[in-house]
Amino acid sequence: MRNRITIALDAMGGDYGPVVCVPAALELSQKTPQLELILVGDQPTLQPMLGSASRVRVKHASQVVTMDESPVLALRTKKDSSMRVALDLVRAGEADACVSAGNTGALMATARFVLKTLPGIDRPAIVSAIPAIGGHTHMLDLGANAEATPEQLFQFAVMGSIVAHDVHELDDPRIGLLNIGEEDIKGTDTVRQAGELLSNSRLNYVGFVEGNDIFSGRVDVVVTDGFTGNIALKTMEGATRMVGKAIAEEFSRDPLSRARGLLARPVMRALKRRLDPRTHNGASMVGLNGIVIKSHGGADEVAFGNAVRTAVLEVEKGIPHQIGQLIERHFSQRQAV
Amino acid sequence: MRNRITIALDAMGGDYGPVVCVPAALELSQKTPQLELILVGDQPTLQPMLGSASRVRVKHASQVVTMDESPVLALRTKKDSSMRVALDLVRAGEADACVSAGNTGALMATARFVLKTLPGIDRPAIVSAIPAIGGHTHMLDLGANAEATPEQLFQFAVMGSIVAHDVHELDDPRIGLLNIGEEDIKGTDTVRQAGELLSNSRLNYVGFVEGNDIFSGRVDVVVTDGFTGNIALKTMEGATRMVGKAIAEEFSRDPLSRARGLLARPVMRALKRRLDPRTHNGASMVGLNGIVIKSHGGADEVAFGNAVRTAVLEVEKGIPHQIGQLIERHFSQRQAV
Repeated sequence: MRNRITIALDAMGGDYGPVVCVPAALELSQKTPQLELILVGDQPTLQPMLGSASRVRVKHASQVVTMDESPVLALRTKKDSSMRVALDLVRAGEADACVSAGNTGALMATARFVLKTLPGIDRPAIVSAIPAIGGHTHMLDLGANAEATPEQLFQFAVMGSIVAHDVHELDDPRIGLLNIGEEDIKGTDTVRQAGELLSNSRLNYVGFVEGNDIFSGRVDVVVTDGFTGNIALKTMEGATRMVGKAIAEEFSRDPLSRARGLLARPVMRALKRRLDPRTHNGASMVGLNGIVIKSHGGADEVAFGNAVRTAVLEVEKGIPHQIGQLIERHFSQRQAV
Repeated sequence: MRNRITIALDAMGGDYGPVVCVPAALELSQKTPQLELILVGDQPTLQPMLGSASRVRVKHASQVVTMDESPVLALRTKKDSSMRVALDLVRAGEADACVSAGNTGALMATARFVLKTLPGIDRPAIVSAIPAIGGHTHMLDLGANAEATPEQLFQFAVMGSIVAHDVHELDDPRIGLLNIGEEDIKGTDTVRQAGELLSNSRLNYVGFVEGNDIFSGRVDVVVTDGFTGNIALKTMEGATRMVGKAIAEEFSRDPLSRARGLLARPVMRALKRRLDPRTHNGASMVGLNGIVIKSHGGADEVAFGNAVRTAVLEVEKGIPHQIGQLIERHFSQRQAV
């Protein structure tokens, strides 16, 4: 671990704001001596909550971006929001990364404006780990861009490959492009052209994959546009929740089922822990000139803590720098041909 | 039920061909006196399998469309395929509907060519019932069209509404348009324009819905293009399978878990039945001038039988006619404005 890592936390973001963020920060700072945390938000609210904690300080911000605010409006009118000030700290080099549980669209728009994208990257993307058979899959874009060109899909693949390799220590990550069939003729022109770009690159591209391959363990990185990615992510969440509800219903159908349910409870609890989205909390906004982690809006302390841990890992690995280098290598390779 | 319903079965289609199709046909014909079945395929193979069954006969076809064949090639070179001859029977009025477990792309292309689309419908779509909390949701398009214009999405909504109302007896079905957020500004231009068309129609349009709403019971019909729909469908299948695998693993972690697993087995079996895709087998290809039902390629007798039952229901309700009427009402309403 680096000598000292400073993370700016948007302390007012998310459904719960300081109520979740401050306790999470206090616990993390106790556990991790190298970590310095800056809580960005309303000083009069935050300061009293800190007590005598060390390596946690407050940076005042007078505004808050609400969860349903338009990104454009937030960017224009909330120049002293906790979100914006936290990102400013990253740009100024006072923080190594920013973590926010706030409005995703506003965070993305503000981050793009404040930090800018890396050279060679048109658009940032949201990447997250998804539980899969035998481990995890990293999927992007999960909703930053409703549409994507073939070149942008290619850039997403580069960024996903870096995250899978550097943060999650997967050797030569296998990359799949999400499509509605595996044959070359399937899908839209955009997907087919992106497939060609990937085939001609040095990335470990395995070809088109289908929705079920997000979980099959066949690939490490699933690349798609933000429309499809977001819908796949929420479909997964909805399907998992429905199965959970169906299990609960089956276990309460009659007295005998209820008895069986009681006995099965420890196993069901283990299952729940395993598929718990809180464990996988912390989606990265990659492609920016800085590290920005988006925590779920409804994250609790445990989940928010995991998002901060993801930020620390990305700082240690220097993710933006790695992405910049891989993109540059790709371009120089292209020009050499 | 109508006096007599005749269904043409593509007896050579799917992963198992006659081995699944013939026993399913024999059982159905025994149970349903009004049903007449035409098994289309290789006569020398099929005839001996029939025995003395009544109301089941064979129509010879000399070719078979394979599961990985290109739709264009199948359409051009397999004019005597079991799939094509079954569809020809529908066009000629000798059968009321066609059921096939064969190559989806080839079935769609051939059905479009043979039966044509209904007036006012640009493209057929694939619709199927998806298990949801408290019942089912009907989603379309599940993969017939990789892209869709706003007008086509509107047509999908009309068709989905008819299927939900007439086949599944839902009053004034609630229609949602799949998007990456519920606010009006979210998503692509195409989705936003489709939302406007739907808002101005007489359909019971509730607005944008997200991936998790496929299962939430908030809407009865989820409308999307075939790219997103197919990926959502397969994501759901993959997520459900992963949860199933995780349950099995948790129940075999140690001897105590295995004992709990043994006790929970009847409940788990009930759960499996409930989420069993075989129960929901039989996706409709709607928008055609005729009834075409696609069974899963890997369907067994039970599942194939359910696909035929869906065909029977659609014949009884006269689905193509209902769709044609609703589209016509919509156009005359528009012209009146």
